[in-house]
Amino acid sequence: MMNMRPRKHEKDSLIIGRFQPFHNGHLETILKISEESEEFTIGIGSAQYSHTSNNPFTAGERYRMIADSLKDAGVDNAYIVPIEDLNRYSVWVSHVVSMSPPFTVVYSNNSLTRRLFLEAGYKIRDSPLYKRSEYSGREVRRRMLHDENWKILVPKAVADVIDDIDGVGRMKGLVDDV
Amino acid sequence: MMNMRPRKHEKDSLIIGRFQPFHNGHLETILKISEESEEFTIGIGSAQYSHTSNNPFTAGERYRMIADSLKDAGVDNAYIVPIEDLNRYSVWVSHVVSMSPPFTVVYSNNSLTRRLFLEAGYKIRDSPLYKRSEYSGREVRRRMLHDENWKILVPKAVADVIDDIDGVGRMKGLVDDV
Amino acid sequence: MMNMRPRKHEKDSLIIGRFQPFHNGHLETILKISEESEEFTIGIGSAQYSHTSNNPFTAGERYRMIADSLKDAGVDNAYIVPIEDLNRYSVWVSHVVSMSPPFTVVYSNNSLTRRLFLEAGYKIRDSPLYKRSEYSGREVRRRMLHDENWKILVPKAVADVIDDIDGVGRMKGLVDDV
Amino acid sequence: MMNMRPRKHEKDSLIIGRFQPFHNGHLETILKISEESEEFTIGIGSAQYSHTSNNPFTAGERYRMIADSLKDAGVDNAYIVPIEDLNRYSVWVSHVVSMSPPFTVVYSNNSLTRRLFLEAGYKIRDSPLYKRSEYSGREVRRRMLHDENWKILVPKAVADVIDDIDGVGRMKGLVDDV
Amino acid sequence: MMNMRPRKHEKDSLIIGRFQPFHNGHLETILKISEESEEFTIGIGSAQYSHTSNNPFTAGERYRMIADSLKDAGVDNAYIVPIEDLNRYSVWVSHVVSMSPPFTVVYSNNSLTRRLFLEAGYKIRDSPLYKRSEYSGREVRRRMLHDENWKILVPKAVADVIDDIDGVGRMKGLVDDV
Amino acid sequence: MMNMRPRKHEKDSLIIGRFQPFHNGHLETILKISEESEEFTIGIGSAQYSHTSNNPFTAGERYRMIADSLKDAGVDNAYIVPIEDLNRYSVWVSHVVSMSPPFTVVYSNNSLTRRLFLEAGYKIRDSPLYKRSEYSGREVRRRMLHDENWKILVPKAVADVIDDIDGVGRMKGLVDDV
Repeated sequence: MMNMRPRKHEKDSLIIGRFQPFHNGHLETILKISEESEEFTIGIGSAQYSHTSNNPFTAGERYRMIADSLKDAGVDNAYIVPIEDLNRYSVWVSHVVSMSPPFTVVYSNNSLTRRLFLEAGYKIRDSPLYKRSEYSGREVRRRMLHDENWKILVPKAVADVIDDIDGVGRMKGLVDDV
Repeated sequence: MMNMRPRKHEKDSLIIGRFQPFHNGHLETILKISEESEEFTIGIGSAQYSHTSNNPFTAGERYRMIADSLKDAGVDNAYIVPIEDLNRYSVWVSHVVSMSPPFTVVYSNNSLTRRLFLEAGYKIRDSPLYKRSEYSGREVRRRMLHDENWKILVPKAVADVIDDIDGVGRMKGLVDDV
Repeated sequence: MMNMRPRKHEKDSLIIGRFQPFHNGHLETILKISEESEEFTIGIGSAQYSHTSNNPFTAGERYRMIADSLKDAGVDNAYIVPIEDLNRYSVWVSHVVSMSPPFTVVYSNNSLTRRLFLEAGYKIRDSPLYKRSEYSGREVRRRMLHDENWKILVPKAVADVIDDIDGVGRMKGLVDDV
Repeated sequence: MMNMRPRKHEKDSLIIGRFQPFHNGHLETILKISEESEEFTIGIGSAQYSHTSNNPFTAGERYRMIADSLKDAGVDNAYIVPIEDLNRYSVWVSHVVSMSPPFTVVYSNNSLTRRLFLEAGYKIRDSPLYKRSEYSGREVRRRMLHDENWKILVPKAVADVIDDIDGVGRMKGLVDDV
Repeated sequence: MMNMRPRKHEKDSLIIGRFQPFHNGHLETILKISEESEEFTIGIGSAQYSHTSNNPFTAGERYRMIADSLKDAGVDNAYIVPIEDLNRYSVWVSHVVSMSPPFTVVYSNNSLTRRLFLEAGYKIRDSPLYKRSEYSGREVRRRMLHDENWKILVPKAVADVIDDIDGVGRMKGLVDDV
Repeated sequence: MMNMRPRKHEKDSLIIGRFQPFHNGHLETILKISEESEEFTIGIGSAQYSHTSNNPFTAGERYRMIADSLKDAGVDNAYIVPIEDLNRYSVWVSHVVSMSPPFTVVYSNNSLTRRLFLEAGYKIRDSPLYKRSEYSGREVRRRMLHDENWKILVPKAVADVIDDIDGVGRMKGLVDDV
């Protein structure tokens, strides 16, 4: 039966995140995964959600943030794939697999993601760590709302995309102040 | 209000297809779009469908076919985005826009696609033509089923992916012969 | 391209609410919008939800509350449209547009609604204010639960509909007391 | 248990159609139902579909066609309600009931609609007949495509809406001619 | 990783059908599977569909047909599970697995079912054959419509359920004769 | 019209729960319902959810827990039916009815369930009580997480299923500890 399955390189891998927005910590993680992998997929999770204070950016906007940052950083072995939530975890692994180029290893520090791929027979590795106290999507969003220096936390390409789409205006516009 | 919208390059464009599978005609079209565009998005339509005789391959499999073919052809200004059907055309343009990096021009020869983007205010261009009599997904699939020479119709990278996943076996397995 | 779009009167407008239930504050707002508009649409949001303590009434019940109240108040330039949530904001404007007669202006004090229509190029106006401290759906529902005088907060037609469907019984029945 | 149910007038009724587009036959039917009913609901079925050759118009466009035609005809006891297909017939009656003001009688000549409401305990009446050989949505659409006189088959208000939205252009644009 | 997976008996199996309605051929097949299995699941496919000429009966009605027939036949090692279609085949196996008690073997003569479970690593066996020329859901439905002897093709318990719910009336009611 | 409806035994009943997991209190309740009913359906609610701390087990796993426990307890008049949430309460009763063998009586202590079936004309009975302070899904899950004696709270068959699927490992794996 083995031969029914796609041949996968031992070192093809997957990492999934929401990337709201993509920040320097994400970039650091991905640079390490890029080195350890033949090819790897960056899944943009919760792809259908946007325009809320926790998920301000569309999948397309996040795609461009990531693609432009990787180009600047010289990463050329990544596939970027928006992945919509199906909201039934029992089929989530199959769904991700169907949307993504093949992979053998899953990088994740999220317990649910780890468990689901573990039950499905995938190899799980800890996601390379970055300074979480310093970099987090929540902190970037907080700074955007309060006109503090958020650009220092994200790659230049991300700042450009956010400026292009008036992302700060959107963030502020989503807060109810009437 | 204009400044609410993302600034888009005049020459950022979009093309959408099902790519079941990606063939030489698609590649020819994309090479021309690549030249005419600053950056462009290749949308993989009907992304959630697979394993039928008309839609045999998953979005992830089609993603790899396209990405590997473009790498071989030296195309480096394309974004590849799987796009699920929502089955309500009135919101389809918004859905595509939310999943894709920004674009100004839409290449399409499909009347529905053209009409929907036209009503939404996009520029429509005819998709660069290739010899349809020679290249078509339908013809590739027919040849796969009948052990005729289908590899001559697709980029080498596509043939490799299809071999990797035993695509011919799947095609034949989907035909009822009991 | 402009001529692809429906010609809309400058003064055709939209207002969206959940109307759980429709109360005197809503009526006051709508009387003002009715005066300022050629024709206008009242969208009944979250149309598919009902039978919870925050959303007790079905879209059909809310439709009748509004229609009967407007008839009593002599408003004859309103379209009433139930609108289901799609739970993906990026296509929400297109969805509303597809379900509603055409409009140019959107009345709203809700930040998300304002932002989404703003990004889509619509004119936004503040919704005419009523005394929020006095009128609110939450307060009407609270009074219904505690047998306080809720009828003073709603148009007579609304009280009639709620009596017809034993709305108070439903509200109380939804509270767990076992 | 009877008192749990909304009190409904004996003569409140429902009629459902796709109205692609609303034509003189529909109007004739509705004039008769208007006379026989205290109040009645016109359900716009398949509300989420549009932009296909069989379902060219959005629910909002169809809503305006109907509302404007009824205003011209002096009908003032109709509720108009877009109703999305759920594609599971076993819950369809409940869905319609939840979206519509209450009704006792269902007018329909469609066997499935009749059967579903019959099993749910509703009174079914034959829909008042009009000359089907003369008036049909299919015929109106055919004439629009071929520049024949379609306006004679629809109320003036419908022709105005279709002109406003360039409906003929859309119909023609949906036909593949590449 | 093996120990992450549920321990399954070698001889636990699955069979899926639409059972519109359950007939003597189905029963014959299931008697053989019952003998060959420790325990087995009967999946009622397309569970959400009913009230069409090809899918007249609800999942609940089909459940009772099967359960009562098995009781009469003395089969006591079957689990019966309604399974809704998700309409994306790439996650279908995961969906079935999540709804069903565990199984190792899949009985099927349907090419798509066989292929999907094969790619997921399950053992496939041919479904025990019955005289298809004699027994088929289509033939039973045809006879019901034409008042021919359909009861001879189904277990007595099935005929009882169909009589109970006026299944013949429903079948005839679904045919358009206006 | 009465004769359109399925003939139902006065004593056919329904009980719905999430059964995360099935415990001794559930069993006690069901033994009483089994005695009071001709036949009865056990609906496994929220069937599509699993792998969260509040809903750890799939519908299939819960099905086997219940079926095996009932077999051990000698209950032979129960139908077990997984029922997916549709997340629109106005059609929920119709949905349950379509998935389940027919029933007249609904056992429930949940206010929403009672209200929805009450409005639809069903007989509601209090669910036979068990010692809630002693038995609850929440308490079983808590003990599993903390290696306390949870097996004393569930039927032996349930403990066996949970051991088979390494349910405790899953519960612990779902808790974030990175």
